[in-house]
Amino acid sequence: MQYPFTKRVSGITSSAVRDLLKVIQSGNIISFAGGLPDEALFPVQELELAYQKVFRSGGKYLQYGPTEGDVELRTLIQERLRERAIPASLENILVTTGSQQAIDLLAKVFLSAGDTVLVENPSYLAALQAFQLYEANMIAVQSDHHGMIPEDLEEKIITHSPKFIYVVPTFSNPEGKVWSKERREALLQLAAKHNVIVVEDDPYSDLRFTDEQPVPLAGMEADGAHVIYTSTFSKTVAPGVRIGWLTGPKEVIRMSALSKQSTDLHTSSIDQRALYYFLQDFPIRQHVERLREQYKHRLQVMQRHLSREGQNLFEWAEPQGGMFLWVSMKGTIDASELLEAALQEGVAFVPGASFFVGQPERNTLRLNYTHAAPEVIEAGMARLMTAIDKVVASSVNGR
Amino acid sequence: MQYPFTKRVSGITSSAVRDLLKVIQSGNIISFAGGLPDEALFPVQELELAYQKVFRSGGKYLQYGPTEGDVELRTLIQERLRERAIPASLENILVTTGSQQAIDLLAKVFLSAGDTVLVENPSYLAALQAFQLYEANMIAVQSDHHGMIPEDLEEKIITHSPKFIYVVPTFSNPEGKVWSKERREALLQLAAKHNVIVVEDDPYSDLRFTDEQPVPLAGMEADGAHVIYTSTFSKTVAPGVRIGWLTGPKEVIRMSALSKQSTDLHTSSIDQRALYYFLQDFPIRQHVERLREQYKHRLQVMQRHLSREGQNLFEWAEPQGGMFLWVSMKGTIDASELLEAALQEGVAFVPGASFFVGQPERNTLRLNYTHAAPEVIEAGMARLMTAIDKVVASSVNGR
Repeated sequence: MQYPFTKRVSGITSSAVRDLLKVIQSGNIISFAGGLPDEALFPVQELELAYQKVFRSGGKYLQYGPTEGDVELRTLIQERLRERAIPASLENILVTTGSQQAIDLLAKVFLSAGDTVLVENPSYLAALQAFQLYEANMIAVQSDHHGMIPEDLEEKIITHSPKFIYVVPTFSNPEGKVWSKERREALLQLAAKHNVIVVEDDPYSDLRFTDEQPVPLAGMEADGAHVIYTSTFSKTVAPGVRIGWLTGPKEVIRMSALSKQSTDLHTSSIDQRALYYFLQDFPIRQHVERLREQYKHRLQVMQRHLSREGQNLFEWAEPQGGMFLWVSMKGTIDASELLEAALQEGVAFVPGASFFVGQPERNTLRLNYTHAAPEVIEAGMARLMTAIDKVVASSVNGR
Repeated sequence: MQYPFTKRVSGITSSAVRDLLKVIQSGNIISFAGGLPDEALFPVQELELAYQKVFRSGGKYLQYGPTEGDVELRTLIQERLRERAIPASLENILVTTGSQQAIDLLAKVFLSAGDTVLVENPSYLAALQAFQLYEANMIAVQSDHHGMIPEDLEEKIITHSPKFIYVVPTFSNPEGKVWSKERREALLQLAAKHNVIVVEDDPYSDLRFTDEQPVPLAGMEADGAHVIYTSTFSKTVAPGVRIGWLTGPKEVIRMSALSKQSTDLHTSSIDQRALYYFLQDFPIRQHVERLREQYKHRLQVMQRHLSREGQNLFEWAEPQGGMFLWVSMKGTIDASELLEAALQEGVAFVPGASFFVGQPERNTLRLNYTHAAPEVIEAGMARLMTAIDKVVASSVNGR
């Protein structure tokens, strides 16, 4: 039979990234495609002990729990937020199933068909998909390497009356860029002036490679009225635990929690409690230091290949943190053409086109440097360079 | 500031049940309100071992995983479905964060503002809330103790062209009733004749108190084209693990999985893998047998009080399984008035009015008999009888 799906899902397509992941998992391919941390760096034994504690407490944490989340876990999140200069009481915090759910819940409470969301371009793919499912219009604001251009942002606020502005200002996905302090301030001023909400998605800020820790937008706003903030433990503890959170004004958290009730009742109480015990006992700072060193080293390995072998072809800005290297190719090479050649050589990445709203830049690619070990990155980059040589040669021959 | 919430959430209210749970948790109150299994019966030690196995496999299951769910867990779910006479390949199964998420995803892929869903009356509250969040109209179909009345169902299918019919045909919430075979067949015939989808929510069927196991609708349909089925491990293993699943035609599962991508990426891979190991090793049939005996005994304790002390006041049909006893009070007593008196005596239940679409029957109440131990049920029912005596007395005095 023909199933009467609603208009909302008529344009839905699978995430290019997640589809690619399936191809990759099936073969002997080195992948720079996913946004995966390295499982070899997960604190497995410490998590095992934390989960053990949950069960040693009896059946209590195996029962249904509050939609808002485990109270003591929220207290620890509150402390983390304080370190990031973000003031929050427990009523300002909702535990979610990864920060992806935080994004979806915000879409659910704010967006109707035809509503506008202002976004960076390129932008985080699965956020765009979440907004699309509520039939929102995404309008891209002009940006440079320092963030959105204030003049264009204000014009688009006035023209489109957006429900909110969605940004990843610290080590963005896919570009790996950091907004400057000036641009952050400009965004907040415009949000206050025009009374627009800013959704700040901040999954990567712990993974910084310099001593400079950018202050989140949510930490810069005096009254906390306009910025809704989301972050996650996926990149610093483990993604499989699926715990993120949403922080914002009480009214927004309350409405999001009410929506979460009918979405999944609550996030796994076992995972929440285990994460609480884990964070209590585990020297997370030291662990994050180690991640920073490791990932920075891997980034350097990757960049070395790019500058050595493709100096005339590739352009990129060195990321100061996060998980992604965003590369533009000079000339007319299409990244999806390069991907085909790359897969034949046994290496994968994500063509940048997927991340754009409207006209994509087809000469861009996103490389993840956090999943593979350094020696695997060496091998994968060698393969990628072979692929690029072949594509360049065939494009020359074709003329 | 005034937050620009969308129309969808303008009518949203917190679940009466979940709000009541908060009140109850804060005091010395015996609760028959929640839909909670007894945590004293959870297989805690066996779950501890299963989670340990996850971590002993290294970091693999702590990584991001497929949206559709752990393949081997889905294979075990497939076996469970076969026992329930429901044929399914892996492509027909999506792992969800509890069956609540399955309901929400179906709402997401099928419902736009103004679409109609046909429901039983009373019906499962959090399903109604999920449908409401997509601005659907719920239309109640006339029912008796054997299920929906086919004539009224057909008339309402013709009049309202519903997107789907939502039913809990086995040990329903809140009524605890079982649809007869004839009514199941009639529903399926009408679904096929008018090409309407049936969503069968089946969280309770394992908890049966007789030898008769009703065949699910999804097991009765030859081509599997019209019935979408959801169930959960919350009632037989533990709710905190938050694992349910959705089974249906490939197109529906595919669309639901695409929607789940942007909803939460996937359900906790740790919980999924642990549940897989648990189900592999644990004699779940024996465990469920024990739950059946325990819960049946508790139901009997509860009924004994009702018939002894309130014979002239209460009416109910004995449930053949599940977690709820649905009681009507003769006369004009309002259950919310009784609740106030009951809370003063230290006992809680949910007034039935919350579960109705349209005009509620205010003389009804839902009593849960699975959470409290038998001796606590004794004490709680004694308190409830004191409360009812007081309400009856004051209503007589008031005249």
